Amino acid sequence: MERAGKDGQYARQRRQRRRRTPPGAPPGTLAADPGAPRPRIDAVLFGPAAFAERAIASPAELPIPGDHAVRWINVEGLGDADTVREVGAAFGLHPLALEDILDVHQRPKLEAYDDNLFIILRTPAGDRGWEEAAAANRLDLEQVAICLGQDFVLTFQKRPDADIFEPVRRRLRSGSGAIRERKADYLAYALIDAAIDACFPLLEHYGELVEDLESMVVERPEIGQIGRIHDLKRDLLTIRRAIWPLRDLLNALLRDEAALVGEQTRLYLRDCYDHTVQLIDMIETYREIASGLVDIHLSSISNRMNEVMKVLTIIATIFIPLTFIAGVYGMNFDPAAGPWNMPELGWRYGYPVTMLAMAAIAAGLVGFFRRKGWIGRGRQGPRP
Amino acid sequence: MERAGKDGQYARQRRQRRRRTPPGAPPGTLAADPGAPRPRIDAVLFGPAAFAERAIASPAELPIPGDHAVRWINVEGLGDADTVREVGAAFGLHPLALEDILDVHQRPKLEAYDDNLFIILRTPAGDRGWEEAAAANRLDLEQVAICLGQDFVLTFQKRPDADIFEPVRRRLRSGSGAIRERKADYLAYALIDAAIDACFPLLEHYGELVEDLESMVVERPEIGQIGRIHDLKRDLLTIRRAIWPLRDLLNALLRDEAALVGEQTRLYLRDCYDHTVQLIDMIETYREIASGLVDIHLSSISNRMNEVMKVLTIIATIFIPLTFIAGVYGMNFDPAAGPWNMPELGWRYGYPVTMLAMAAIAAGLVGFFRRKGWIGRGRQGPRP
Amino acid sequence: MERAGKDGQYARQRRQRRRRTPPGAPPGTLAADPGAPRPRIDAVLFGPAAFAERAIASPAELPIPGDHAVRWINVEGLGDADTVREVGAAFGLHPLALEDILDVHQRPKLEAYDDNLFIILRTPAGDRGWEEAAAANRLDLEQVAICLGQDFVLTFQKRPDADIFEPVRRRLRSGSGAIRERKADYLAYALIDAAIDACFPLLEHYGELVEDLESMVVERPEIGQIGRIHDLKRDLLTIRRAIWPLRDLLNALLRDEAALVGEQTRLYLRDCYDHTVQLIDMIETYREIASGLVDIHLSSISNRMNEVMKVLTIIATIFIPLTFIAGVYGMNFDPAAGPWNMPELGWRYGYPVTMLAMAAIAAGLVGFFRRKGWIGRGRQGPRP
Amino acid sequence: MERAGKDGQYARQRRQRRRRTPPGAPPGTLAADPGAPRPRIDAVLFGPAAFAERAIASPAELPIPGDHAVRWINVEGLGDADTVREVGAAFGLHPLALEDILDVHQRPKLEAYDDNLFIILRTPAGDRGWEEAAAANRLDLEQVAICLGQDFVLTFQKRPDADIFEPVRRRLRSGSGAIRERKADYLAYALIDAAIDACFPLLEHYGELVEDLESMVVERPEIGQIGRIHDLKRDLLTIRRAIWPLRDLLNALLRDEAALVGEQTRLYLRDCYDHTVQLIDMIETYREIASGLVDIHLSSISNRMNEVMKVLTIIATIFIPLTFIAGVYGMNFDPAAGPWNMPELGWRYGYPVTMLAMAAIAAGLVGFFRRKGWIGRGRQGPRP
Amino acid sequence: MERAGKDGQYARQRRQRRRRTPPGAPPGTLAADPGAPRPRIDAVLFGPAAFAERAIASPAELPIPGDHAVRWINVEGLGDADTVREVGAAFGLHPLALEDILDVHQRPKLEAYDDNLFIILRTPAGDRGWEEAAAANRLDLEQVAICLGQDFVLTFQKRPDADIFEPVRRRLRSGSGAIRERKADYLAYALIDAAIDACFPLLEHYGELVEDLESMVVERPEIGQIGRIHDLKRDLLTIRRAIWPLRDLLNALLRDEAALVGEQTRLYLRDCYDHTVQLIDMIETYREIASGLVDIHLSSISNRMNEVMKVLTIIATIFIPLTFIAGVYGMNFDPAAGPWNMPELGWRYGYPVTMLAMAAIAAGLVGFFRRKGWIGRGRQGPRP
Repeated sequence: MERAGKDGQYARQRRQRRRRTPPGAPPGTLAADPGAPRPRIDAVLFGPAAFAERAIASPAELPIPGDHAVRWINVEGLGDADTVREVGAAFGLHPLALEDILDVHQRPKLEAYDDNLFIILRTPAGDRGWEEAAAANRLDLEQVAICLGQDFVLTFQKRPDADIFEPVRRRLRSGSGAIRERKADYLAYALIDAAIDACFPLLEHYGELVEDLESMVVERPEIGQIGRIHDLKRDLLTIRRAIWPLRDLLNALLRDEAALVGEQTRLYLRDCYDHTVQLIDMIETYREIASGLVDIHLSSISNRMNEVMKVLTIIATIFIPLTFIAGVYGMNFDPAAGPWNMPELGWRYGYPVTMLAMAAIAAGLVGFFRRKGWIGRGRQGPRP
Repeated sequence: MERAGKDGQYARQRRQRRRRTPPGAPPGTLAADPGAPRPRIDAVLFGPAAFAERAIASPAELPIPGDHAVRWINVEGLGDADTVREVGAAFGLHPLALEDILDVHQRPKLEAYDDNLFIILRTPAGDRGWEEAAAANRLDLEQVAICLGQDFVLTFQKRPDADIFEPVRRRLRSGSGAIRERKADYLAYALIDAAIDACFPLLEHYGELVEDLESMVVERPEIGQIGRIHDLKRDLLTIRRAIWPLRDLLNALLRDEAALVGEQTRLYLRDCYDHTVQLIDMIETYREIASGLVDIHLSSISNRMNEVMKVLTIIATIFIPLTFIAGVYGMNFDPAAGPWNMPELGWRYGYPVTMLAMAAIAAGLVGFFRRKGWIGRGRQGPRP
Repeated sequence: MERAGKDGQYARQRRQRRRRTPPGAPPGTLAADPGAPRPRIDAVLFGPAAFAERAIASPAELPIPGDHAVRWINVEGLGDADTVREVGAAFGLHPLALEDILDVHQRPKLEAYDDNLFIILRTPAGDRGWEEAAAANRLDLEQVAICLGQDFVLTFQKRPDADIFEPVRRRLRSGSGAIRERKADYLAYALIDAAIDACFPLLEHYGELVEDLESMVVERPEIGQIGRIHDLKRDLLTIRRAIWPLRDLLNALLRDEAALVGEQTRLYLRDCYDHTVQLIDMIETYREIASGLVDIHLSSISNRMNEVMKVLTIIATIFIPLTFIAGVYGMNFDPAAGPWNMPELGWRYGYPVTMLAMAAIAAGLVGFFRRKGWIGRGRQGPRP
Repeated sequence: MERAGKDGQYARQRRQRRRRTPPGAPPGTLAADPGAPRPRIDAVLFGPAAFAERAIASPAELPIPGDHAVRWINVEGLGDADTVREVGAAFGLHPLALEDILDVHQRPKLEAYDDNLFIILRTPAGDRGWEEAAAANRLDLEQVAICLGQDFVLTFQKRPDADIFEPVRRRLRSGSGAIRERKADYLAYALIDAAIDACFPLLEHYGELVEDLESMVVERPEIGQIGRIHDLKRDLLTIRRAIWPLRDLLNALLRDEAALVGEQTRLYLRDCYDHTVQLIDMIETYREIASGLVDIHLSSISNRMNEVMKVLTIIATIFIPLTFIAGVYGMNFDPAAGPWNMPELGWRYGYPVTMLAMAAIAAGLVGFFRRKGWIGRGRQGPRP
Repeated sequence: MERAGKDGQYARQRRQRRRRTPPGAPPGTLAADPGAPRPRIDAVLFGPAAFAERAIASPAELPIPGDHAVRWINVEGLGDADTVREVGAAFGLHPLALEDILDVHQRPKLEAYDDNLFIILRTPAGDRGWEEAAAANRLDLEQVAICLGQDFVLTFQKRPDADIFEPVRRRLRSGSGAIRERKADYLAYALIDAAIDACFPLLEHYGELVEDLESMVVERPEIGQIGRIHDLKRDLLTIRRAIWPLRDLLNALLRDEAALVGEQTRLYLRDCYDHTVQLIDMIETYREIASGLVDIHLSSISNRMNEVMKVLTIIATIFIPLTFIAGVYGMNFDPAAGPWNMPELGWRYGYPVTMLAMAAIAAGLVGFFRRKGWIGRGRQGPRP
């Protein structure tokens, strides 16, 4: 049932994955997913002394430069190509960047355009939305686009209900930390940092999953576990594809020749870089452990089955000689034909002696098997 | 049957693969495949203001420089070495490049000659021709040669019926986008981009194949699946060989010191580069999943078989003690010889008591096996 | 039981691992683990001519520069964020460094700030505390932070009872070696060296574990060993994550452009680097051997089981024809109905001849199996 | 038998492999293999206008520089160290190069001496000699040494009967291509190209072998195939060792700072480089497929065996309950002792009813197994 | 027994491995192994014109510079730290180098000190001592330290009875080659070359071992072979750890900026480098083959076992229907109760007909199994 649901979900994933710009279309073709929610725009404007937050109904209302040191425009929902195009045009985004924003199957990357830096990240949706997603076998990391200009930051998110940038907005509102005094580059850092930090709970969740599977595989081996290990490996692969490119991305950002990223912010980006390396470390460790689990699983399942087969075979083996003896005395040789013809049948204690002999043979076999360590003691075995 | 067809197809592939320039031949020896279709040449001439499209009957009719800003000569079908040589000569191609065009088993590469760049790509044939090919177990990516000069682009394709450049031609015809205003380098970019974009549907097809196999292997393990996984891995290997070199190729193109590729076009080529990295990412993911499938398949098949063996063995084991008891009372000890000689045979309820004892033993064994979790409950097992 | 304890311990580990700065917190947020022991500070002050050692009750008492050439402040226990912040402030540590000190799940790294170098290491706790930890399946390497300034070294350790720097303190006390005459960089080297040296006993312990498992797996294969091999591989993975980054760390330290590390000390750091490479070498060797052990284990267990099955099957096989013969002479064909109806039953020596025939068949089968090498000689087999 | 022959051949190989300069001998010690054929020297002298070919009886007759633009001296057979030394001395070869010529177990490499380039290649012997060799399980690639000077090329081959340079000689004789007009560097290129080209038929042969094994393993799994896969993998390893170093070799040749390789020839060497990369690609693909074959083989063999076991076990399982019933009615309870003692034996239709019951049980079991998919339909199974 | 001996030997190895400088000791602490033999010093002094060889009783007698162009001091046996320290002091060795000499578990490395180069190598002991060692499962490569100064070479070896430098000493004595005319750098080269050359017989030995195991595993699969393959893999790992670092070491020596290594000697070191690469090539090849052997072994053993099980199961299966028939006619239905009650028992030819029917069934089953390829022909199977 679970899997049937999974099948249906695969079909959905496929349809989604297909929604790409058609091959051969001119570069910069904007194709919005009509099923996606309509964009919702809000702006946060701030400087050392000022702070304003406002919802924006249409791209025409976008704040113009001048009043505030930094303008942060956040677009949630990518269901309308025109809105995205107009927002992009207002800030001088390159058509290729606009195309990348709408095609939500991008790999994380940094693109340096003449007067802005364009960044694609993949991150778990906020508020542990990924936990439900992972439970429903639909782990998919959301694409987030960040565009950093001289005095503005644009952010584009697909889902309107899972704002991973909320903590940053709260810090801006409260004015805590030095964030209001810094430039746009520091805001961009804070957003990237929030996106990377959001991966830690995800990986901790998978760390627990790995440990749960580990103890289950060792202690209670079951056939279905191979599927769970496979799902785990597949999810880790998905996360890995989202995290690995971050390292190069941050490296490129640190080496950025354009003067968009200030010296002071670089220090903070190096901290981001360290977090990324730590995430990669965790992923690789989990992947390696998961690979080892396959071996243990196969070994455990096969051991369990062998244990069953062994016990059953031993039972069969004990009865085989006994049945043979019973068969012998079931033969119809005529005792009257000669003194050597089954005289046992006529003995006074023939039957009880035979039964005792059978019991002795059974006991002997059990003792032999036990001495060989095939039954009973075989379980705990000789420990060094 | 399917495989028999595959055998025949292998033989054909072999014959094809053999058609190389013989070892030791002087470099630049042109050896056309006589079975290949005869070349069909068409030219697209355009500039910011003009656009012309014409079929070319013989190399002598090739357009001369001057009238148009960019000349794009497309040759389809490589069945005649002379035609290829004459076309090449008209545009100053190096003999080694000509040799590479005709030897259709090249690896993607970029060769920088004095006044032109020579590019070999491998790409799925247009119009989903590859889908039939893949269905018939003949996945083979077509070789495409692109030669970029100052004011011309030459393209050479093997199959005349599968033009992957059609979308570009349509854009040129309609004048949509800025393509007519740009130089030859942008046209070359557009052609490369079309070739790379054509790989996405192919990989999506294989992505679905991977998912189908995945759910089949987990839910309905069958022996023949190992062959299908192997075919999948092999096809992915083929695609990988076609895609991986693209990364280096595009890198070299971006670093190109010759001034053939303009600054503006480089930006677009970087986009191509990103797509290539994304393709590589997909291939590697599929390959890794496919490798994991082998493990799951082996485990599933072996589990299924063990399940069978276990049930059968349990049946056998239950009957073995019963048969033994029946054997005992089939013995011919003479009850007359003494009171201990099988007195049960003469008891009033000997037979029904024996039958009940047998039933009790059978029930006891079933209960024992069930408590051990070997039958019945063993399937759903104790879940944590 | 052992594993149940492990489960509980996993839960504890998880809780511990969760104690990170919450995602989206401003950088430099200090979150101390309230369950950790309260900090205990001590200072060692020395120069070529002077040496003083004192316990420090509160950050206000920290020694000021001037009197001694080198000040080494050691903080043990990280249970109070304020103390750590004040110590850090007194020496000009960057807020990000302070955050790293308190988050005890960092990867080893070197961070170069303007006027100090900040180093995170992971090392086994002193006095072989790791040995008990490893025995209890809780191998976790302690995080140590070292901060090197112009004339001071700060060290932060989590556990107050496992000072791995004790040997260095002893050398300073006794004045042995040239350590008192050197600058702060040499002290930092001595501390790093002590931390790296502390890994050798740990790895030697695992080297012995590998060898023990190796001989057990080959000589006394048992089912539970796969779990032990897995635990071993997991611990090696943990150690590897702590040691590998040291190589880059020391490389960065050797290339350090800030003039904090003197030429002479570099020579000693190169020695540290060699030790690190040797540790990596050991880890990789153990990991490779442990991987091989899985194969041997699976092969050995399966061989043992096959050996059992073979012997049992052979016993069954020998009795099957005999039981068949007994069955034949148990048939009730009426000898009176014709001369061909089981005349053997009436022969004088029918029964003994039948028994001898059975014995002959059994002996023949045993001989056949023996000649095939399936029993008896099969064990020691033909050696070349 | 085949393998016995292989054993003998191993012994021979070992003896051969032992013939190295003894450890500790001074560098440049020349140790010829006394069993190797005696050297046969021939010279090809040419320039744009002239061409001469002559056999050379002794090193004293070697052509002196002057008359011809390029002198190509080819030595076949390495059975005499003195001859090789004299030829080398005449052209100023370094003693280490001479040692390398005679030690025929070298890895391909390029050595740049002051006034010449010394190249070691490994290549399949000409005229498909390798095909017989491979058939006889003796795949060994011949070592060829090429020394390129300002106006001469020396070549040394071990076997006198398998001249892989014959095609180049034919081109020189016929004057086809531009080869006579070029310098020594182009001749060296032509020779290297011939050696690399000679690898293509070899790899195509192995490609076919891979495909043959592939279809055999999938369709007709047999136990012996594992040995053939192993032989294949081993041969591919041998070829790989001969081809991989070529890439670095050609790279070094292309970067060569000594002015021995002209600009024009470099273009051709780049073509060689491409061929090498293509060869490497093929080898790696075959190796990967061969590795996958091991999995398929193990799976197929085990499936085949399981299939056998399953059928046999099912037969046994069907008869076990029937035999039990027959055993029951073979019991000797006395019907006279009471009305419940086996009254069936005295029923009018007891026997036929029992037989019918048995048939019904057998049919029921067959039906049950069939419904479970264990027999009959299990083969083609439920396809999605 | 063999393994018991191995256990004891492991214990010894462990004790040895433990003899390291204790963690936290000051750098340059010299800890000699008290069980090691006492040092024996000898000096070889030479120049183009002079040659002297003398045993040195105490470090005080060490030759002073001046008389000879090159002084080679060889110390064998490392049982006394003071002697080593005094020899080192006489030639200005760094304390860290002295520590490395005495800690005989170093990785090969090159350390450039101010006025000398310090080299650690690992090499098989001379005179094939390793062959006995390998036979006794104790493969351990000896550590050799070489220190190259302007006019001297120091060498330190652990075992006094296995001088791998003897061939070099002989060449110096005899004055063969140019060795006496060269400087200290050439002597150092000659010693390194001797150490590397000493690895070839070792690897040839393992090459033969690989081939022996290979043919045994394919032809005579036995259970114990997995242990031998594991030992082989382990030894190859040991050798690999000794050889791989040589490549970097020689590279560093070739790039050496200190003017200790002359231009001419570099040429010879490049030859050493080639030998090292060749050794690495051999090791990797053997390792890959050994890994493949595990697969073949598992497959062969499992095939052998399956073969046994199959034959036995077939025997059982043939007799099961026969036994059933015998059981049927052993039933006691009363023929007198009705005409359908086992009339066969009273037929004239009932018994022989039954026996013939049984024979027919057995023959039919044998024929069926044979046609299925499960017995008889199954072995040699259908070959293509």
